[in-house]
Amino acid sequence: MEKMFKVALDGMGGDFAPANPVKAAVDAINTDKNIMVMITGDKEKLEAEFAKYEYNKEQIQIIPTTEEISCNESPVDAIRRKKDSSMVVALRMVRNGEADAFVSSGSSGAVLVGGQVLVGKIKGIERAPLAPLIPTVKGVSLLIDCGANVDAKAHHLVQFAKIGSIYMKTIVGIENPKVAIVNIGSEEAKGNALVKETYPLLKECEDINFIGSIEANEIHTGKADVIVCEAFVGNVILKHTEGLAKTLISEIKKGLTSTVRSTIGAALVKPALKETLKQFDASEYGGAPLLGLKGLVVKAHGSASAVEIKNAIFQCVEFSRLQVNEKIKEQLFPPVKEEASDDK
Amino acid sequence: MEKMFKVALDGMGGDFAPANPVKAAVDAINTDKNIMVMITGDKEKLEAEFAKYEYNKEQIQIIPTTEEISCNESPVDAIRRKKDSSMVVALRMVRNGEADAFVSSGSSGAVLVGGQVLVGKIKGIERAPLAPLIPTVKGVSLLIDCGANVDAKAHHLVQFAKIGSIYMKTIVGIENPKVAIVNIGSEEAKGNALVKETYPLLKECEDINFIGSIEANEIHTGKADVIVCEAFVGNVILKHTEGLAKTLISEIKKGLTSTVRSTIGAALVKPALKETLKQFDASEYGGAPLLGLKGLVVKAHGSASAVEIKNAIFQCVEFSRLQVNEKIKEQLFPPVKEEASDDK
Repeated sequence: MEKMFKVALDGMGGDFAPANPVKAAVDAINTDKNIMVMITGDKEKLEAEFAKYEYNKEQIQIIPTTEEISCNESPVDAIRRKKDSSMVVALRMVRNGEADAFVSSGSSGAVLVGGQVLVGKIKGIERAPLAPLIPTVKGVSLLIDCGANVDAKAHHLVQFAKIGSIYMKTIVGIENPKVAIVNIGSEEAKGNALVKETYPLLKECEDINFIGSIEANEIHTGKADVIVCEAFVGNVILKHTEGLAKTLISEIKKGLTSTVRSTIGAALVKPALKETLKQFDASEYGGAPLLGLKGLVVKAHGSASAVEIKNAIFQCVEFSRLQVNEKIKEQLFPPVKEEASDDK
Repeated sequence: MEKMFKVALDGMGGDFAPANPVKAAVDAINTDKNIMVMITGDKEKLEAEFAKYEYNKEQIQIIPTTEEISCNESPVDAIRRKKDSSMVVALRMVRNGEADAFVSSGSSGAVLVGGQVLVGKIKGIERAPLAPLIPTVKGVSLLIDCGANVDAKAHHLVQFAKIGSIYMKTIVGIENPKVAIVNIGSEEAKGNALVKETYPLLKECEDINFIGSIEANEIHTGKADVIVCEAFVGNVILKHTEGLAKTLISEIKKGLTSTVRSTIGAALVKPALKETLKQFDASEYGGAPLLGLKGLVVKAHGSASAVEIKNAIFQCVEFSRLQVNEKIKEQLFPPVKEEASDDK
């Protein structure tokens, strides 16, 4: 038997908890017999949800906790004070080596603070960016940072560019990934104070393939593999992608059944359309990793479906196999070779 | 005969100049006999374009200029130095009362600087915001600011909220328009430094209907009528809407013809689909006004089609009829009534 991959799952995080995390856990273990889900949360509520399913009980472990972290509270205070919350207990399991990865669709801010404080950053990492893959016509690009690291400085963005390059190369398999910074014009002189300060620094970096600015209308064209931005802007792009795609798709569906003629046509185009729209469906992408930590932390979005949380669990297995954080550490901070030197 | 409405059109601005501005001018005057277009630019090039069309020569006036402002130069320097550029000459015509409005699809930065410096801001307006209408499932919302006023302060955003409310009430006809600020969470405590500073100020405003934060996934839901944000973020949202809608639509079209079955269906759904997608087509919306100036300034986007520029010209007629800037002035800075007072 292979070694079990243990995921600490926040059973109370997200808009549809504990129902969706429980369903995701069951689906994940029913798909892969080498996954164990250690789910934290209200014991009674979790058991009531699990009672609805058939599954191998040896692959599920309920870790009873008494507190929950909501999106309305200060992330820093919540992580510090709610020591018996489903999120803090699960994060500690990663830190202590009891679990191999952490997944939550709870408060982004709390995942970010908890990931950095409880699991800890790799030495040298200034801020851990939340970096989801977003759909493009050519495949996917990495949008880095989308977390709650707002009001970043130029040197943070430079590190994000390097982390993103390592990710796209080692995880997605793109040689010499193209890096661009989100801007409001294509010229170097354009932008706000942060972009103007960051641009020349990125240009100087020898370890990335910086191609300049990317305007927001080019984000889904595949022009850049690594799209660097400050977290507020990244969050806006990420949520806007989700919202606009949803709106357009629902308007298109409405339009398709607006006439008798189109309703007949709609039945014929449905399978092809479904396939096309799938690539713009956020749930297909699972969650977003918080990169540069000493352990695996993946955030699924607040209204994540069970499929999305399940995919986030599978993502963890893949991240672990490909050793994402280990590679970031190795390549960003290569061990200094001791050289024979006489000039003491 | 009605009074002619005179539009000063930048004949050299935009990616497809002078072809698109010339075609737009011809289409506009062929549609409305009370419009006169005074087009600035290279005389020979403009005449060569006009030679392609049939139109009433009395409604077109070519104003020869010798310089052009590109997107690659500093807006401030360009406006100051290129006194015989198509943009500066056209803007001056508005200032001098020779034209009723200015339209350009040239450099956003230059339109912004030129509008503020040459046409001039209404007394009391701190920064003139670029405010396009964006499509929502309920109709349209105003996104304010999308210009080049980057790195705004909280008090600028507060004034944008008030200007936007007046616009949506007096131009679009929405009573008590709902105002929200773009944020990365729905709670007051969320956001970057700018949003955290602005939120309580908006809450205190008695003259607007502030409903709190709006996340980027809610932008096209019609939750808010006036969507307030700093220009960098607004520009990202605006361009992202255009880019993602274009990508989705092209992917859908590709998908529709991917199988024989779907190709037959595609022919049937085409008219209905076209109608649906029209509402997300930027060119239907014309341009975006630069609000709070002493004259009408409308910016069409850089790659604007002739239809889009023509619609921007018609927008000017409408703005003039509805007296948009006059209403902003009246309502934002009502004349102080002299009161009889004895306590001198």
